[in-house]
Amino acid sequence: MDFDLSAYLLARKQWVDEALAAFFTPPSPPEKLFEAMIYSLTAGGKRIRPILMMAAYEIFGKNGRDILPFACAMEMVHTYSLIHDDLPAMDDDDLRRGKPTCHKVFGDAMAILAGDGLLTEAFALLTRDGTTPEWPAETRLRVVRELAQAAGAGGMVGGQAMDILSEHQPVDLETVRFIHTHKTGAMIRAAVRIGAILGNADTDSLDALTRYGEKIGMAFQIVDDILDVEGDTAVLGKAAGADDKLEKATYPHVAGMEAAKKEARQLIAAAHQSLEGFGEKAAPLNAIADLILERNA
Amino acid sequence: MDFDLSAYLLARKQWVDEALAAFFTPPSPPEKLFEAMIYSLTAGGKRIRPILMMAAYEIFGKNGRDILPFACAMEMVHTYSLIHDDLPAMDDDDLRRGKPTCHKVFGDAMAILAGDGLLTEAFALLTRDGTTPEWPAETRLRVVRELAQAAGAGGMVGGQAMDILSEHQPVDLETVRFIHTHKTGAMIRAAVRIGAILGNADTDSLDALTRYGEKIGMAFQIVDDILDVEGDTAVLGKAAGADDKLEKATYPHVAGMEAAKKEARQLIAAAHQSLEGFGEKAAPLNAIADLILERNA
Repeated sequence: MDFDLSAYLLARKQWVDEALAAFFTPPSPPEKLFEAMIYSLTAGGKRIRPILMMAAYEIFGKNGRDILPFACAMEMVHTYSLIHDDLPAMDDDDLRRGKPTCHKVFGDAMAILAGDGLLTEAFALLTRDGTTPEWPAETRLRVVRELAQAAGAGGMVGGQAMDILSEHQPVDLETVRFIHTHKTGAMIRAAVRIGAILGNADTDSLDALTRYGEKIGMAFQIVDDILDVEGDTAVLGKAAGADDKLEKATYPHVAGMEAAKKEARQLIAAAHQSLEGFGEKAAPLNAIADLILERNA
Repeated sequence: MDFDLSAYLLARKQWVDEALAAFFTPPSPPEKLFEAMIYSLTAGGKRIRPILMMAAYEIFGKNGRDILPFACAMEMVHTYSLIHDDLPAMDDDDLRRGKPTCHKVFGDAMAILAGDGLLTEAFALLTRDGTTPEWPAETRLRVVRELAQAAGAGGMVGGQAMDILSEHQPVDLETVRFIHTHKTGAMIRAAVRIGAILGNADTDSLDALTRYGEKIGMAFQIVDDILDVEGDTAVLGKAAGADDKLEKATYPHVAGMEAAKKEARQLIAAAHQSLEGFGEKAAPLNAIADLILERNA
């Protein structure tokens, strides 16, 4: 296979970066709030969720660029979750992607509000006239639902709550799986599903891509946990060993490092399998799955 | 006029209370998160925003009960905003409606997540199959947009940010007006507008009701500021004098108490005026406007 993943990722990351930077520029009053939102939005994210959405969409012969507003809305929700997770009351992280976290720069109050603002603006963006008018209202409504359900108390927020509640507690593998499927998995799954829905996927294709999203989402978080133990703070852009300090419920912690690595490999193999029906058109999604397994940051 | 406002408010408050209590019962895992959400949702709110939405809807000959899911979504967003506003990093309030605030009972992390969950679940509720399917997708999408724009960085979150940024600062009347129209005004305006939109209001009616919403929203916040100075902690259910302690940008603080009272009266008079075209059908909205002026809590 002659697919150039680096070029593929870079092009889409640039589209997302440019689109995100444009949404809140110039900042309206109160400037500090918008500065905090823009600071975190443009703090060097890999844009993996937007890229997954575009890659799933492109399976259906489309141009990923067409769905940038949807992709950006997803990244706004992801960014809000990072800002709130980093707060002193939550994971209390000083560094994110090698830069001081939002609350370290703007204070806790402005960081809470920047997160609240990004989450809410994502839904405003999805429903704004002139941003996504070419899609039928029924489709746009379905995207809002997918995103809200993935991000809400039954998804990401529930996973983060379980994560916090499990700190310094004895936890079993079931709890770790709950945290992973909800905290990270739900949004990665939703990214792929939204791309497929916008691409007018039939039921079988949507199911196959949903399975792909679930497998790579789970693998993504297991690798994250592994990197927290084995990774390098300088490469990660955040403090390695942070999970251990909080006695977090992680896969390596509960099942052991070897089992964690084996599970991640098996999940990625299953992700490849779920894409078999798409042939060469799935080259980007296949390559992203491999990257998730092999990444070091 | 022989309109029984107390009975009107009580009936609708009970509809909202029952519907809200049902949404998250029984709580899913993680239970603590859902308990925190339910705790604040059922902590004795007056449900003024949902009632305003229903009252605006009823102008068009409809039954307010038909739009309960929309009304509840609005109350969820309002409740999230109270939870986050009360956090130690924000206004640091221990009491809300006479009960300990969410973070005093469940801790800061769970309170942040309960707020995040309520905000997100509001959008899930608005787009869920089986909850609001009888409205066209275009209308439901418009409601999501109205709510997101009112709650977001250009609305409520922006107002709260400006409020925080103005503490212990010299502020002018323009800043106070910005805070009022954004922090409280935007959501009250949206409540009335959403009711009108769901009632298929024509442009003139929507404009008139929008003006009504803007006037009472502004009056509501000015009266709030007045009560913070002149009110009684026991009746308010929250600490009187809290604004003064934080040197908050309030109307009485900047313009003086007499000017504040006069402004509130004038706004309510303007609210009545904007309803003139609706005749007797506007009795509930007129009565609510008077109540806003005369309330003591």
